[in-house]
Amino acid sequence: MQLHQAAWPEIEDYLKRSKGIVVPIGSTEQHGPNGLLGTDALCPEIIAREAGDASGILVAPTFNVGNAQHHLSFPGTITLRPSTMIAALQDWIDSLVRHGFERIYFFNGHGGNIPSLQAAFSESYAPWSLRDEACPYVLKSCNWWDLPGVMKTCREIFPVGDGSHATASEVAVTYYAYPDSVKHVEMNPKIAPEGDFTDADNYRKTFADGRIGSDPAQATPEKGEVIVKAARDSLIAEANAFFGANQ
Amino acid sequence: MQLHQAAWPEIEDYLKRSKGIVVPIGSTEQHGPNGLLGTDALCPEIIAREAGDASGILVAPTFNVGNAQHHLSFPGTITLRPSTMIAALQDWIDSLVRHGFERIYFFNGHGGNIPSLQAAFSESYAPWSLRDEACPYVLKSCNWWDLPGVMKTCREIFPVGDGSHATASEVAVTYYAYPDSVKHVEMNPKIAPEGDFTDADNYRKTFADGRIGSDPAQATPEKGEVIVKAARDSLIAEANAFFGANQ
Amino acid sequence: MQLHQAAWPEIEDYLKRSKGIVVPIGSTEQHGPNGLLGTDALCPEIIAREAGDASGILVAPTFNVGNAQHHLSFPGTITLRPSTMIAALQDWIDSLVRHGFERIYFFNGHGGNIPSLQAAFSESYAPWSLRDEACPYVLKSCNWWDLPGVMKTCREIFPVGDGSHATASEVAVTYYAYPDSVKHVEMNPKIAPEGDFTDADNYRKTFADGRIGSDPAQATPEKGEVIVKAARDSLIAEANAFFGANQ
Amino acid sequence: MQLHQAAWPEIEDYLKRSKGIVVPIGSTEQHGPNGLLGTDALCPEIIAREAGDASGILVAPTFNVGNAQHHLSFPGTITLRPSTMIAALQDWIDSLVRHGFERIYFFNGHGGNIPSLQAAFSESYAPWSLRDEACPYVLKSCNWWDLPGVMKTCREIFPVGDGSHATASEVAVTYYAYPDSVKHVEMNPKIAPEGDFTDADNYRKTFADGRIGSDPAQATPEKGEVIVKAARDSLIAEANAFFGANQ
Amino acid sequence: MQLHQAAWPEIEDYLKRSKGIVVPIGSTEQHGPNGLLGTDALCPEIIAREAGDASGILVAPTFNVGNAQHHLSFPGTITLRPSTMIAALQDWIDSLVRHGFERIYFFNGHGGNIPSLQAAFSESYAPWSLRDEACPYVLKSCNWWDLPGVMKTCREIFPVGDGSHATASEVAVTYYAYPDSVKHVEMNPKIAPEGDFTDADNYRKTFADGRIGSDPAQATPEKGEVIVKAARDSLIAEANAFFGANQ
Amino acid sequence: MQLHQAAWPEIEDYLKRSKGIVVPIGSTEQHGPNGLLGTDALCPEIIAREAGDASGILVAPTFNVGNAQHHLSFPGTITLRPSTMIAALQDWIDSLVRHGFERIYFFNGHGGNIPSLQAAFSESYAPWSLRDEACPYVLKSCNWWDLPGVMKTCREIFPVGDGSHATASEVAVTYYAYPDSVKHVEMNPKIAPEGDFTDADNYRKTFADGRIGSDPAQATPEKGEVIVKAARDSLIAEANAFFGANQ
Repeated sequence: MQLHQAAWPEIEDYLKRSKGIVVPIGSTEQHGPNGLLGTDALCPEIIAREAGDASGILVAPTFNVGNAQHHLSFPGTITLRPSTMIAALQDWIDSLVRHGFERIYFFNGHGGNIPSLQAAFSESYAPWSLRDEACPYVLKSCNWWDLPGVMKTCREIFPVGDGSHATASEVAVTYYAYPDSVKHVEMNPKIAPEGDFTDADNYRKTFADGRIGSDPAQATPEKGEVIVKAARDSLIAEANAFFGANQ
Repeated sequence: MQLHQAAWPEIEDYLKRSKGIVVPIGSTEQHGPNGLLGTDALCPEIIAREAGDASGILVAPTFNVGNAQHHLSFPGTITLRPSTMIAALQDWIDSLVRHGFERIYFFNGHGGNIPSLQAAFSESYAPWSLRDEACPYVLKSCNWWDLPGVMKTCREIFPVGDGSHATASEVAVTYYAYPDSVKHVEMNPKIAPEGDFTDADNYRKTFADGRIGSDPAQATPEKGEVIVKAARDSLIAEANAFFGANQ
Repeated sequence: MQLHQAAWPEIEDYLKRSKGIVVPIGSTEQHGPNGLLGTDALCPEIIAREAGDASGILVAPTFNVGNAQHHLSFPGTITLRPSTMIAALQDWIDSLVRHGFERIYFFNGHGGNIPSLQAAFSESYAPWSLRDEACPYVLKSCNWWDLPGVMKTCREIFPVGDGSHATASEVAVTYYAYPDSVKHVEMNPKIAPEGDFTDADNYRKTFADGRIGSDPAQATPEKGEVIVKAARDSLIAEANAFFGANQ
Repeated sequence: MQLHQAAWPEIEDYLKRSKGIVVPIGSTEQHGPNGLLGTDALCPEIIAREAGDASGILVAPTFNVGNAQHHLSFPGTITLRPSTMIAALQDWIDSLVRHGFERIYFFNGHGGNIPSLQAAFSESYAPWSLRDEACPYVLKSCNWWDLPGVMKTCREIFPVGDGSHATASEVAVTYYAYPDSVKHVEMNPKIAPEGDFTDADNYRKTFADGRIGSDPAQATPEKGEVIVKAARDSLIAEANAFFGANQ
Repeated sequence: MQLHQAAWPEIEDYLKRSKGIVVPIGSTEQHGPNGLLGTDALCPEIIAREAGDASGILVAPTFNVGNAQHHLSFPGTITLRPSTMIAALQDWIDSLVRHGFERIYFFNGHGGNIPSLQAAFSESYAPWSLRDEACPYVLKSCNWWDLPGVMKTCREIFPVGDGSHATASEVAVTYYAYPDSVKHVEMNPKIAPEGDFTDADNYRKTFADGRIGSDPAQATPEKGEVIVKAARDSLIAEANAFFGANQ
Repeated sequence: MQLHQAAWPEIEDYLKRSKGIVVPIGSTEQHGPNGLLGTDALCPEIIAREAGDASGILVAPTFNVGNAQHHLSFPGTITLRPSTMIAALQDWIDSLVRHGFERIYFFNGHGGNIPSLQAAFSESYAPWSLRDEACPYVLKSCNWWDLPGVMKTCREIFPVGDGSHATASEVAVTYYAYPDSVKHVEMNPKIAPEGDFTDADNYRKTFADGRIGSDPAQATPEKGEVIVKAARDSLIAEANAFFGANQ
């Protein structure tokens, strides 16, 4: 069930049977020569949509721009400053809590969002902790590739060159959902270098075409489908466990 | 051309021929008994996508949660505080400007966003004005229903009960794109009351089911298609005129 | 009745008979070769003072610096960033609400303030809406020239060249109140150009002496008096209607 | 010379002969049973206006609402939070500096503003200091009663019961300028108690009618005139010395 | 009793007998050729530690970086912007208040902190004042050299050249506690100049080696001990008086 | 070398031979029945001080209050909100960078600080990335227990019950430096439970005396010394490697 494709009375009904919601969250940032700029937002959106359709779990619209300052040397990247991202997350959380949601599951597609997400959770809990009141809701985040079983599936499909940015797996997930966007690009070198980075200038000097450790030319819609189905089932199980906890 | 479905070298190429981009911006808020919570984000997204596909104009991901505090008494509504929205818009603008975009066209689907958008534009221009430097970019916003010719089309299709919130027109636009989400609900009263509002409590007391002045039961995918096609063509003309201006 | 010229026991008494207050709000910005930099603050202040004296309606001190970034290429202009203006308005509103005011009428003299004012109203309502509580106060803004009957009066007096910035009407209003500040300047061209603007550099390049569409050399204290009297009576009627509503 | 009663070409001319400006700054807060709520803003405004008229020194519009949280238990008081006040002062300073002002003299009427003013000065200097650049402007504040010779004049006129809030001197200054606002109220006790305070509740419990240590029933327009004239002359000398320094 | 060297049950016990706490607050900034960069944080920390050990008064960890923008031209100086400092102080205060502390005594070692401290106190009281609730706690600040009797002691020990920055007294206090950090440097001139300052560039141009009016070569551990003992006893008396007040 | 115990000319000299600095960062929060409230700040401070003394590496004052909202149900805990912590870290970083530091190594003692630290790093890099300039400095954080070899040492000393909050290791480190603060408390249960937490109320309900998974009664000064020496040597190696990198 997609919140943005439901009418409000449907949400009112949903809240009678569940206090949980999944919020896909990602980033709009370069993903190498053949990966979509929307990859990190699209992956959790695609998986969550399938999970919502299959299970009736409610899925919010996607928080589609995150923390991507280090990718700004590649055209098309859009970033929030962490302080802005923390503020925006407060507003999303406060809105959902106002309707009675008590379990908010941020389903994340971008490693660079994790610090801001975790900081936002502390920012949200802090007023309750400072007031000596029990906070009535629980916030949780999970990266789609960290769902039980998913990384194993990815490594089986891409034993070499899955990498850590513009991974073969994430590109495959988007190709499955948007087959018209498949791009055939020769990778050079075949597998991108590994390493660390700081700001955007440093990143581009270190990773010339944007990839880290990956050969995303291996991605196909069919491989993406396998990953999506595995992640979909795992998300349904994880979200239901979270929504049921302490209730 | 959708930014989030392009790879960064495609954006690099695009910038050689145009410095303009369309950013759909909307809201996630109740739209009456049969309207989608995502209506105000989906309408500009749908129209801009068709315009981008038909013309090659670049379309950014949708800024999908806006200023909707007055709708919070209806489940599913998500709001940004105006101060948060202004901060987030700065980050989107700064990111796009960094890549060389000089004409940013916010294509808006929610009247309640206008003050925050306009305030954000002044906030963005202010540092240039305070430094006595010429700002290298131009910001513009336009509501989809204010595009030349669109309102006339809407009024021809819905001569009675188009209304001002949860309008027949906007519901039709979303039904065209998401025919599986069509909801058949009897409206009572057939045409909703008109009026003003302040906070969420006041809004719900005044407009019991969320509509203002509308009978959205008239909406169909077919009617939506007529509106989308008219808006698509008008947007292409308007955006191209804006992108070309002063260049 | 002017708040700043009353002692606190007088305000305590006033609150026993009315919960309404008028807050003049304007800007300090260039108004062409013969218009005062304070024009946009002085106009609502002048009209509100006369209305307060004639009717007993309470008038707050003037919020005298607003959003004027686009005028900064002309010496003397002072601006608030919109984010600062929104924050300052929260503090004014919170202070007045704390005393029991329930109807706050911002009487505006500057079109450029409208987005920040409307955004500030949403910012003020948002915590109530997010908490599911009814907000106990109502905020309203009105431009002095939009009061019933006023624009008609202005157009009768200045059928040609009233314009849209540094208007003959607004300059006349200030000349009525400050006849010692009348400045005789030949306008060149007689009627200034019309157009749009973005930042301060763009504004000055487009409007060389600061005027938009106006010939303020027509302004005289006598013409200003006619406008002030019309606006005064209209403000009294409007404010009383607002203060009485829902009470 | 009043900035808000000048046209921009007059400010352009002024800047050719001086880089200095006086900004009256005060507060809107209770001043006891017979003192005006605007006292702290009106006093520096009145003195600065006379100084500007007599000397040609440029005087800005008055920053008329300051830090007055401790007076909020008395109706009519309006406060800025210190953080808001610091932000607003940055915008005023940045605007004036952009025009070329290099000496900004905040002429203060409220002791409670001093911390926020001094903090705002450090906030304004900090970016220059952090960038290792010389700041091109100097900020200064002075309370009107601290001008050379003024306190002596006040004490001669009011040897007993001048006090420290709602002082006989400050009430007299406003009575001089606004004789129609003179209020005859019997003070009980004749001289108010002295003491410290924290928040608004504490203040009102300690100082029942708002005065601290004063008997403002002694104030008359005539006494106010003596003070204003002394302060006017002292301000002219002080401001000119400041404007000339290091130039 | 040092909070950071206690376990939480010890603080729980302490709160049964006292609601008061001393918070040393200082700065990390240049203190001339032989003074420690930590001087302004170390002085109140040293004195408060001795007072806490001698009396059982609870002492918090030291707020060790304050407002020092004007010293940034000297290597090693670290500053908070005043707006950051005010925000940080709110969090410290809110945390302590949450545990039941009702008297928070900021024991200050840096004159430049005073405006930010006072502004932070108003910021903390403002929400209570705006809500018409009595604030349950009292905030107080005192500079260590303003404790009764301390300045007299300093002037007796250093009748000449104690100065106002990098004073002989404060350097002596740190030498007493950290005798291994004593630095023997010839001062040139022997007594530094007096004067005012604005930003960091201006400060360094005016005070070439960082001192103002002082000859800190006079400082010795033995002289520091005399000052510390005097200040310790005075602080115990002052803090106990404050903690007991209104309880 | 301790920055706060050096004079500014010593820092000026240091910068001629190194651009690196270690900043200990921790938290002031409950550490169970026998652990010090300052544990998380003291551990990195103690280790860094020994490393600085042994190697000449420069060590800044300790950032001693961090993100500890979840511990606020235990008296004595002090927290910064993440947004405040990010702002404060910007100021520390900006100050150090202004002096020429190019490698800033945050040596961390509190897991709960990591999201705010990482978010602060992105916040600091973002303006450079948005401006298309290479950031001239590199920020790094490392938890003391993650230094090469340290965890192995801890597990050898405490094969059972080292735990994850109020660990035997960290308590031992503080006991080594502050033997007078050793507290003998019987733990009940001997080893505390494991688990997750959200806000302060939830934390205290889950972990009754504050410990997670630990038996800190095993801590002694002697064991602490072994850990400190191992960590000291590892920190020197790590910091030198970082300071030398890319230089």
